Amino acid sequence: MFIVADNIQITNPVIALALEKQDHRPIQKLAKRCEAAGAHAIDLNSGPLNLDPARKMRFLVETVQAVSALPLFLDTSNPKALEGGLEAAENKVVINGFSLEQEKLNSILPLAAQFNADIIGYLLNPDSQVPTDANDRLMLAYDLFEKCQKAGIKKEQLIIDPVIAPVQWQDGNRQAMEILTVLRSLPDLLGYDVRTIAGISNLTSGPGKMTSKMTLEQGYIAMLTEAGLSMALINVFHTQTIQIIKACTALKNNTIFSWEEIT
Amino acid sequence: MFIVADNIQITNPVIALALEKQDHRPIQKLAKRCEAAGAHAIDLNSGPLNLDPARKMRFLVETVQAVSALPLFLDTSNPKALEGGLEAAENKVVINGFSLEQEKLNSILPLAAQFNADIIGYLLNPDSQVPTDANDRLMLAYDLFEKCQKAGIKKEQLIIDPVIAPVQWQDGNRQAMEILTVLRSLPDLLGYDVRTIAGISNLTSGPGKMTSKMTLEQGYIAMLTEAGLSMALINVFHTQTIQIIKACTALKNNTIFSWEEIT
Repeated sequence: MFIVADNIQITNPVIALALEKQDHRPIQKLAKRCEAAGAHAIDLNSGPLNLDPARKMRFLVETVQAVSALPLFLDTSNPKALEGGLEAAENKVVINGFSLEQEKLNSILPLAAQFNADIIGYLLNPDSQVPTDANDRLMLAYDLFEKCQKAGIKKEQLIIDPVIAPVQWQDGNRQAMEILTVLRSLPDLLGYDVRTIAGISNLTSGPGKMTSKMTLEQGYIAMLTEAGLSMALINVFHTQTIQIIKACTALKNNTIFSWEEIT
Repeated sequence: MFIVADNIQITNPVIALALEKQDHRPIQKLAKRCEAAGAHAIDLNSGPLNLDPARKMRFLVETVQAVSALPLFLDTSNPKALEGGLEAAENKVVINGFSLEQEKLNSILPLAAQFNADIIGYLLNPDSQVPTDANDRLMLAYDLFEKCQKAGIKKEQLIIDPVIAPVQWQDGNRQAMEILTVLRSLPDLLGYDVRTIAGISNLTSGPGKMTSKMTLEQGYIAMLTEAGLSMALINVFHTQTIQIIKACTALKNNTIFSWEEIT
């Protein structure tokens, strides 16, 4: 499993202030901590960035790549911010991401072709609503795949995000199980081992005890790993969750098991 | 998931001594702790009991049912011990268990019919070797099912144990994944929702750091729950593993999720 740190986000007041003040240090400190905690890539969740989007995403990218060679996931719905980040990037970058929403198809998808970058496609309806079951999601996946083909994006550049719903939704637990079906079905549907990513924190968003949330996250990440998820977008400071990912990956791998893969 | 405590076993020197001295107290204390920790049933693993098997299993059963109304799993390969336990039992009992080994078919399987007790069937070859893949296990499951039918045992009395192999075996991780396939395939193969059980501690038996073993156990139990395992035979003092079982059961259930199922 490829682990993408979700820790650098604008909803963190420290990061918001650092971005506002153009202060490299708190962001770099956090990026280095993510790398030390085992992240294979770092997501830069800047939010929509209504003011100065290109300059701010450029600042984020330059700040982090000054201290880390890890791939960077540019996590915003603002095409101008994405363009600024893509221009500034020397590290490998991934666009996070697009959906079948017309605005995103028009303004975000072409950036993947233009900058030859990998891009995440969300399994959301064109009106950005979460689909209700596995079949709906699989039809959306096929649509995303076709849009990429038409936009001249290689199939290996596409990473599909089935979009985890909060378990506290009325049918949240059923949705969580539907996503496992989607992960198992995608390779057959598309005819190749398409890469997948899931934002794990979505599952437990909302009220709830932290210990219960961690337990649920740990159980679900094991199921996701077994179902074939390629990448987990996750708080890399959730140490036991990361350990469970490693253990489950070692179970699923066709290599000879070694305890050293876990410890 | 139905949780069966594996804590009362003859390999525990305290239990071995109590059984030898016919001392109720250490056994009753442990049984009560298992029930408090959330066990839905208690396994009584007496080992083969070469000396006085019937009397000793009877003692174990009477000792535990004096303090607990939980179902008791009589875990021995000795038919005399099983018979003693079955005669003494007032609580619900499960015979743990039989395999296609001729000796067990002759002397253990008939006890399930005679005492109208549930019985666990192990997916082991007739020579007691662990089969190599899911297909072999499924063929064994069908054979066990047929033997039960012939012995006049109702299909609802059979509980199938796919037999988890230690992950430290050369192909231990592959075997662990094969078992998931077995669990998913059994209902179709046998034409009904056959109950299943797995001894979780087998996975991590042998050398290894305890923290790594717990991590692996936690990840694998989530996979087993998702694959449809009905019963986990487990150390009920592994608190976080038990919590993960509850979380995964809540995810898999078709009822509305509630955090109270975990906390």
